[in-house]
Amino acid sequence: MSKGLPSRAEDYSAWYNELVKRADLAENSAVRGCMVIKPYGYSIWEKMQGALDQMFKDTGHSNAYFPLFIPKSYLSREADHVEGFAKECAVVTHYRLKASDNGSGLVVDPEAKLEEELIVRPTSETVIWNTYKNWIQSYRDLPILVNQWANVVRWEMRTRLFLRTAEFLWQEGHTAHATRMEAIEETQKMLKVYATFAEKFMAVPVLQGVKTESEKFAGAVDTYCIEALMQDGKALQAGTSHFLGQNFAKAFDVKFATKEGGLDLVWGTSWGVSTRLVGGLIMAHSDDKGLVLPPKLAPIQVVIIPIVRDKDQYALINEKVNSIIEKMRFHGISVHYDNRDTHKPGWKFAEYELKGVPLRLAIGPRDLENNTMEIARRDTLTKETVSMDNIEMLVKNLLEEIQDSIYQKALNFREENTSEVESYDEFKKVLKDKGGFVKAHWDGTAETEERIKKETKATIRCILLDEKEEQGKCIYSGKPSNKKVVFAKAY
Amino acid sequence: MSKGLPSRAEDYSAWYNELVKRADLAENSAVRGCMVIKPYGYSIWEKMQGALDQMFKDTGHSNAYFPLFIPKSYLSREADHVEGFAKECAVVTHYRLKASDNGSGLVVDPEAKLEEELIVRPTSETVIWNTYKNWIQSYRDLPILVNQWANVVRWEMRTRLFLRTAEFLWQEGHTAHATRMEAIEETQKMLKVYATFAEKFMAVPVLQGVKTESEKFAGAVDTYCIEALMQDGKALQAGTSHFLGQNFAKAFDVKFATKEGGLDLVWGTSWGVSTRLVGGLIMAHSDDKGLVLPPKLAPIQVVIIPIVRDKDQYALINEKVNSIIEKMRFHGISVHYDNRDTHKPGWKFAEYELKGVPLRLAIGPRDLENNTMEIARRDTLTKETVSMDNIEMLVKNLLEEIQDSIYQKALNFREENTSEVESYDEFKKVLKDKGGFVKAHWDGTAETEERIKKETKATIRCILLDEKEEQGKCIYSGKPSNKKVVFAKAY
Repeated sequence: MSKGLPSRAEDYSAWYNELVKRADLAENSAVRGCMVIKPYGYSIWEKMQGALDQMFKDTGHSNAYFPLFIPKSYLSREADHVEGFAKECAVVTHYRLKASDNGSGLVVDPEAKLEEELIVRPTSETVIWNTYKNWIQSYRDLPILVNQWANVVRWEMRTRLFLRTAEFLWQEGHTAHATRMEAIEETQKMLKVYATFAEKFMAVPVLQGVKTESEKFAGAVDTYCIEALMQDGKALQAGTSHFLGQNFAKAFDVKFATKEGGLDLVWGTSWGVSTRLVGGLIMAHSDDKGLVLPPKLAPIQVVIIPIVRDKDQYALINEKVNSIIEKMRFHGISVHYDNRDTHKPGWKFAEYELKGVPLRLAIGPRDLENNTMEIARRDTLTKETVSMDNIEMLVKNLLEEIQDSIYQKALNFREENTSEVESYDEFKKVLKDKGGFVKAHWDGTAETEERIKKETKATIRCILLDEKEEQGKCIYSGKPSNKKVVFAKAY
Repeated sequence: MSKGLPSRAEDYSAWYNELVKRADLAENSAVRGCMVIKPYGYSIWEKMQGALDQMFKDTGHSNAYFPLFIPKSYLSREADHVEGFAKECAVVTHYRLKASDNGSGLVVDPEAKLEEELIVRPTSETVIWNTYKNWIQSYRDLPILVNQWANVVRWEMRTRLFLRTAEFLWQEGHTAHATRMEAIEETQKMLKVYATFAEKFMAVPVLQGVKTESEKFAGAVDTYCIEALMQDGKALQAGTSHFLGQNFAKAFDVKFATKEGGLDLVWGTSWGVSTRLVGGLIMAHSDDKGLVLPPKLAPIQVVIIPIVRDKDQYALINEKVNSIIEKMRFHGISVHYDNRDTHKPGWKFAEYELKGVPLRLAIGPRDLENNTMEIARRDTLTKETVSMDNIEMLVKNLLEEIQDSIYQKALNFREENTSEVESYDEFKKVLKDKGGFVKAHWDGTAETEERIKKETKATIRCILLDEKEEQGKCIYSGKPSNKKVVFAKAY
């Protein structure tokens, strides 16, 4: 139970790790860097998938599935891409095991060596553009608007549950277009979809911007991103949308006959979010008592707990509660009635608090007499006694209020933790004392960016899409700059 | 278009391959044995997933996710299991690539060799039971009812789109129980779920039975299966549900404290269906003009095609059609209006016939005058002209009728192609002339089973759950047998 959960103030990192484990979200597996996503954690991911998938379909995308394996040579086809992904990948070299000669177990069968090694996909641009080559002949075949839900593998050395794992689950959209403009519009459209999802479903406000050259996706012309702020003042990249230009079309020779009778390279985009979002969701809202989940992504929105001494009271309470549950379900509310007699009410209270169920209803014999229930909000930890009449409408409204309230709280936190600085001293002081997003002028060079990163561990999270032009001087080099960019320490 | 689709009678295998490609369901990828599932094919799989997932949840299961990789040594822990799966698996031996010394590309970095090789999961019993060991201490932790949607890899030498591919998508349920009886009940319950899904959603009648020792899952005590009959008279194993006994609990030392204070090994089950079902769906119903899809799994249930000469007519027809679409959607019908002016009606008719859309509505200027539409059934290829009034109700009823009718047709086909034989000569003759399911007495030995397989290519598909006891003699050995079993040539 939540007893013994480290506090955030004490040790934020330990708090996160313990919370993920105790709330039954995920655990490390025996395979280095790979996690097991437990049913409760997976059900949050399913809620995310459901909402995102609908948004993708509403914007005209279809799902498809491409191979897990990528021939080694494909990775080299796009020069930047190979730099980004060859260093940390799982390589399949053989396709058979056999009993060892000394009978001690299994060994790789040397006879079964692959002619060309296969890479477990770290991302699928190469294998997908190699496929698109056959799908695209003319402008009539464009655009292609495809998404894939899949697992990918990047051999990370330092892993953390949800935030950075060797294998993770994600979706990757891969689109192909006839014009540069259309591809850029798609890239930006999907960024908006991600921002809307983060804010409306996750209740996490996000900055929308463009990555610097050093931070962009290996193979992209431009990487757009959404950046969220965690409670410890560190940023989390929550989603990226890449304008690929004609880079992958060039690498895989994907051309199309234009309306005008010419032959052009195809323009591309790709965009993705992953199970990392579950980590971000936890870190954005939860408290020292456990998870705080926004109602729109909570696997259970309401839990009802009976408080009874003797078994005779159960029957009456069950009957009453069942009629309430029916009404709630009719209104689309996900409700769980925990009337197990193997656990005490106090244990259950702590359990559902830890699991972040947004609303808890308790009902005892006196409530039954008075036609009341006790209703408790997980986010504010406030309680009140309310009438059972039309309680389903009260609950419906409260769930909406909680969703808004959690978002507003996170937004206030971000605003309080966003600073603007004019000097490097001020920059370092804010980073040290307060953290959060720090806006500052930067001279636009990778060299300055790298030095600031080395000295302070802060990286440029993005250049905001709506940042105003403003003449200023780079806090590090003093060279001229025409807009501020957003720095932060990040996950 | 469907022009040139080989007929089933002519070359069933070529018909299947061509149909899968031309209907945009799937194609071979550049990676040997791995397919690309195209958007239209994937949307059928999504429909299957949706229905199955709901059925799993309704029977108390939750989804979770376990690692893609399995340490090599895990495979050896269960003696039968290793025999079944070590021979055909993808082996990860390294975790990094580097530029080759001669600059010609990427090579595997010999410095990055794994201490223990990792196998890309062919199925997840080992990694899951190794996890369950930590989840299960007492009877209070049981049952565990978990399912996973995932990709798996088996290095098949001869592959066919959907039916047998090196990588495929599937779901694998893995449950843990306190008693033998409860585990057997679970195994049988999930078999029923699969049978219900096959018959109600896929409109494919299935036999329910138990596999012989030679055909059962490597590591199971008993394998239950559903078996469907394809139009070429060959059987397709469509789903399996395994009673694992305590085999994996033994291999991974998974014990629990019983209510009575003892310590027992846990009982297990596993069960799965895969993208192979898409192949089965195609082969069960489709005809020489293309796909025939049951309405419950059709991505598009109704297509509406306007037949107009000049553009002025479009506006009137669009208006009328849009009001009809709205009513259909209200009734949960998935409808697509194809009013592209880049393709002629005849082209569209052939296209949606090929794609197996269950109902086609066509509307021209005269229909508009008469308040009528032409409605065509894909399954029977019949057409009639009907009033537009309440056409949504007509469509709704017709979709149900088509679903039933397709099932009934498949059931009749199976009944006509199920034979009972009393001698080996008769057995061989039926197999040769007619194919289908052949019921015959068998002496229960693996030796006889193997010989029959060698001589006729027919395998024992299952021993029917409801097969009546009947004294007889094995058609091959003449030894006594107390019930007939079902033979067939199979995919």
